[in-house]
Amino acid sequence: MDTQAEIEDFILNGHLRYVPHVSIDCAIFGYHEQQLKVLLIKHKYIEGWCLPGGYIKRTETLVQAANRNVMERTGINNLFLQQFKAFGDPGRARINEFDEEKWFRVTGVRVTKNNWLIDQTISIGFYAITDFSRSVPKPDMMSEDCAWFDIDNLPKLEFDHDEMVKEALHTMRVQLYHYPIGYNLLPEKFTLTEIHALYETLLGKKLDISNFPKKLMALGLLKKLNEKRSIGPHRSPHLYVFDKDAYDKALKEGVVLS
Amino acid sequence: MDTQAEIEDFILNGHLRYVPHVSIDCAIFGYHEQQLKVLLIKHKYIEGWCLPGGYIKRTETLVQAANRNVMERTGINNLFLQQFKAFGDPGRARINEFDEEKWFRVTGVRVTKNNWLIDQTISIGFYAITDFSRSVPKPDMMSEDCAWFDIDNLPKLEFDHDEMVKEALHTMRVQLYHYPIGYNLLPEKFTLTEIHALYETLLGKKLDISNFPKKLMALGLLKKLNEKRSIGPHRSPHLYVFDKDAYDKALKEGVVLS
Repeated sequence: MDTQAEIEDFILNGHLRYVPHVSIDCAIFGYHEQQLKVLLIKHKYIEGWCLPGGYIKRTETLVQAANRNVMERTGINNLFLQQFKAFGDPGRARINEFDEEKWFRVTGVRVTKNNWLIDQTISIGFYAITDFSRSVPKPDMMSEDCAWFDIDNLPKLEFDHDEMVKEALHTMRVQLYHYPIGYNLLPEKFTLTEIHALYETLLGKKLDISNFPKKLMALGLLKKLNEKRSIGPHRSPHLYVFDKDAYDKALKEGVVLS
Repeated sequence: MDTQAEIEDFILNGHLRYVPHVSIDCAIFGYHEQQLKVLLIKHKYIEGWCLPGGYIKRTETLVQAANRNVMERTGINNLFLQQFKAFGDPGRARINEFDEEKWFRVTGVRVTKNNWLIDQTISIGFYAITDFSRSVPKPDMMSEDCAWFDIDNLPKLEFDHDEMVKEALHTMRVQLYHYPIGYNLLPEKFTLTEIHALYETLLGKKLDISNFPKKLMALGLLKKLNEKRSIGPHRSPHLYVFDKDAYDKALKEGVVLS
């Protein structure tokens, strides 16, 4: 939404083009050099920070809606967004706090409690992981700000978005052993030290380096190449790649072990 | 819903007590002696079979809604229902097929296209697994029938419920290695043959019995007991238990490998 007329039309007539009562929120994780971050935005009409999200057009699929909302709100495109959970506790949308005057001040549009945006909403959570050094977010017209935050230093988020980040992180950590999540975060060929650092950062804990490669290879994630990287005198560690074919096959069959 | 007055009130005024545009559908798997089944119901106002489900009360959480709907539609209680995915493709609810006369014939209530039940709906999928020999379903007033079907011999389901079953099965199969899913489907202490048969049935494929226990134990799922079961002369296989403490801990930390 780029103009005041578009915002007004969305608020007053949006229920004709969007599915009411359902929204989408996206936890976008960013990795770079052993740092893990989350992308947050600050709406003009909400006090604190929250996850980027929005509504679903009546003509789009859920994942299309997730991609469009992230693109519109943050300018970031081409993410591999995955659903992780729907959130629907009564009271999560805080509709009791609706303040007609404040809405008017911020949006320039006068609405009543009957407006489609004020009613109870169930939100579908998506997550993605990207390299934050290559993704510079830009806030849209409805937002004051949009920025990457360290996972260990998040502000208190609005609504139930603290829980959403926690659940997204949990899902990402479990799926780390089933999906090629690290695929775009490492060079095509990488050393054990590199993937070990990535997994430690994503999991938020130390991993025993002597057992680590054995376990990853037992799960069919890694392939050891007959190739080394020369990084100095007497230092030429073996190179590894993700075994993406094995992954794709395992995913299609719904199982990792054989 | 037990009376015609309740059905009429639900159709005409349900949007005041339920969240419109969002429903819940439940894929309930049943295991017993190497058979895997799915619980299906046949609505009075829909031609074919589909998953049991319904709407979310404005006062309940999603999992409460899932449990209540399964209980109301099938009489089965105390399931461990887990969310697996939300389904929201445009057209999934087939609102174009709305037939005023048919609705009236079946429900005894006259509605128009503006009724809250006729609009686009996004459905949140839950799944559970139980022992079908101990769960005898009973259809409710809105259903003609309710029964267990072999997973390999399902009728073509209504709406997008074929896809729901497929996705639920996929999730269950991946989670089999992370959650104590078999917990209530085996005796407390079981032999390798028993858990091997369970996993083969749930995964729908043969598993190499010589590698199977090694892999399960590497993932921290199983504990070997210093105890055997005597099942005949020269036949006394070792007994195993699920290591539920390790599971619970791993789940809380969001990771299985250490």
